[in-house]
Amino acid sequence: MAIQHPYLMFLGDAPDQLAAKTAAGVAHWRPEWCVGQLRLPDCHADLGLKDMTIAEAKAAGVKSVIVGVANRGGRISEAWTAVLTEALESGMDLASGLHRKLVDVPALRDTARATGRQLFDVRHPTRDFEVANGRKRPGKRLLTVGTDCSVGKMYTSLALEAEMRRRGMKADFRATGQTGIFIAGDGVSIDAVVADFISGAVEWLTPAHDEDHWDLVEGQGSLFHASFAGVTIGLIHGAQPDALVLCHEPTRPHMRGLPEYSLPSLELCMARNLEAAQLTNPAARFVGIAVNTSGLKAEEADAYLEKVSKAQGLPAVDPVRHGVAALVDNLE
Amino acid sequence: MAIQHPYLMFLGDAPDQLAAKTAAGVAHWRPEWCVGQLRLPDCHADLGLKDMTIAEAKAAGVKSVIVGVANRGGRISEAWTAVLTEALESGMDLASGLHRKLVDVPALRDTARATGRQLFDVRHPTRDFEVANGRKRPGKRLLTVGTDCSVGKMYTSLALEAEMRRRGMKADFRATGQTGIFIAGDGVSIDAVVADFISGAVEWLTPAHDEDHWDLVEGQGSLFHASFAGVTIGLIHGAQPDALVLCHEPTRPHMRGLPEYSLPSLELCMARNLEAAQLTNPAARFVGIAVNTSGLKAEEADAYLEKVSKAQGLPAVDPVRHGVAALVDNLE
Repeated sequence: MAIQHPYLMFLGDAPDQLAAKTAAGVAHWRPEWCVGQLRLPDCHADLGLKDMTIAEAKAAGVKSVIVGVANRGGRISEAWTAVLTEALESGMDLASGLHRKLVDVPALRDTARATGRQLFDVRHPTRDFEVANGRKRPGKRLLTVGTDCSVGKMYTSLALEAEMRRRGMKADFRATGQTGIFIAGDGVSIDAVVADFISGAVEWLTPAHDEDHWDLVEGQGSLFHASFAGVTIGLIHGAQPDALVLCHEPTRPHMRGLPEYSLPSLELCMARNLEAAQLTNPAARFVGIAVNTSGLKAEEADAYLEKVSKAQGLPAVDPVRHGVAALVDNLE
Repeated sequence: MAIQHPYLMFLGDAPDQLAAKTAAGVAHWRPEWCVGQLRLPDCHADLGLKDMTIAEAKAAGVKSVIVGVANRGGRISEAWTAVLTEALESGMDLASGLHRKLVDVPALRDTARATGRQLFDVRHPTRDFEVANGRKRPGKRLLTVGTDCSVGKMYTSLALEAEMRRRGMKADFRATGQTGIFIAGDGVSIDAVVADFISGAVEWLTPAHDEDHWDLVEGQGSLFHASFAGVTIGLIHGAQPDALVLCHEPTRPHMRGLPEYSLPSLELCMARNLEAAQLTNPAARFVGIAVNTSGLKAEEADAYLEKVSKAQGLPAVDPVRHGVAALVDNLE
């Protein structure tokens, strides 16, 4: 069921680099999987990969075309459909992070059926999940949680995977959002699961494993986000985390999308996340804090991290500036 | 979009009274809407309503047939389909609480289309919801929360509606589960909403209203239930409750469906629910405790309620044995 690599990154007619944010994340974390990019005329994004036609991608052994781009007006244009149909006919699968499903485009659905290729609409779970059973299962799990949405939970989880593998530890990133799913090749868009099955889907995503194996579970939302806390607490309960890492962005003026809501303090946020985690894993503990300091100057960032580390008694790092070695040290 | 009454309660071939639990709940709370019941041969449930054919129901002015029964094997049998088709052809709508959708039965779908009648599959939300915006809106809201699932949250909410209306207060029950939806004529099966939209669906369900109007919101699940807490916290945040009532069943040996999980103390449960509620409504407070004491003898029940009331400093009642006047007194 996983998305097969190597990937060709389809950028379509992305109006700017930001529209290709998902594709850029995949190319950053899985450079060895991303052998080329396909850009239509009027594309203003560039991943720095080799530009390829479908025929060239086929010759390069591409197995899947990744539609990792926000399209204009939410539609899948005829120009896109022509290229994507050609990819299917050349033996490649398609995987898309668009809200609009590939499977709802008749030409793509029919061609996929005729050619036996697969369409992955990663925002839309197609599996059925069980209700969570809450039973402890072997293996270790680390979950990233946040003061808010979009504060670096995926980045931190992936940086932890890379650092732990570098040290020879058994570690797998577990994706809960669309970009993460392209990077892992599999996963669950947890915010698109039916409410009754949030925790059950996470139990499925992070199954029993070797006792010395770590699942690094991508967190979503925040317990303090008035729109999405249901996703967050279900994710915490299903993951049964042994370890938690708090992610934070210190310059944010208010909760993302909610101008009337300020961010919680780190203390309060950690206390509430720990309470939630201890329902399904009484041994849960925080092992560190990951701060996105891109809004601060280097010396400000260092001072901020030192202050946070001292106040919370935990390692505090910016994963981009410093890596996450200090967090893994504390885990080991 | 609401389900029109009067109702004919369809009991099918229910194997026992328990299989008609949903229908019994509707008949209990809305006797004035339920003008008759239709039982097939081999039905072992009885609501004590007049038995009617579809023709008799039509003559009695029935607008909707309510399928408020658990069917055998999850299928909709041909015997059922024949009667339900006749109801559509006689000008009635159908509303069902089955997992299996009416709209997926070709004969029913086609007949409904041909006759212009509506099929309500109340377990399956068909509306699109927005992401919650968290903004305060006028009107008052009371939410029932629980130590566990199935501890009387719907019953308590409906008892509060009845008591408040008796006193001339403006009050509307807001349904979040299938039985409640039949009783209210409308609502959202909140556990079937996509995770991202839990709180948004509740904001839709409990919109701005007169400042002296109370929405009595049916709670679901429990913050301490490892399978369903995502539903519960999303419901709390979306409802922005001014008042909370804790529901509890004191003889339960463990959390429903989770033998490894014990129930929380009332103190801890109230503290966590209040924390969650105060994110979107800092003025939230508990106004009382509703206990299902059906597992206790009368004198045990009285002693338990007195002990709880004293310990928590709140009125504590069994809504079935004592009504909820003491809770409404504390609200006023």
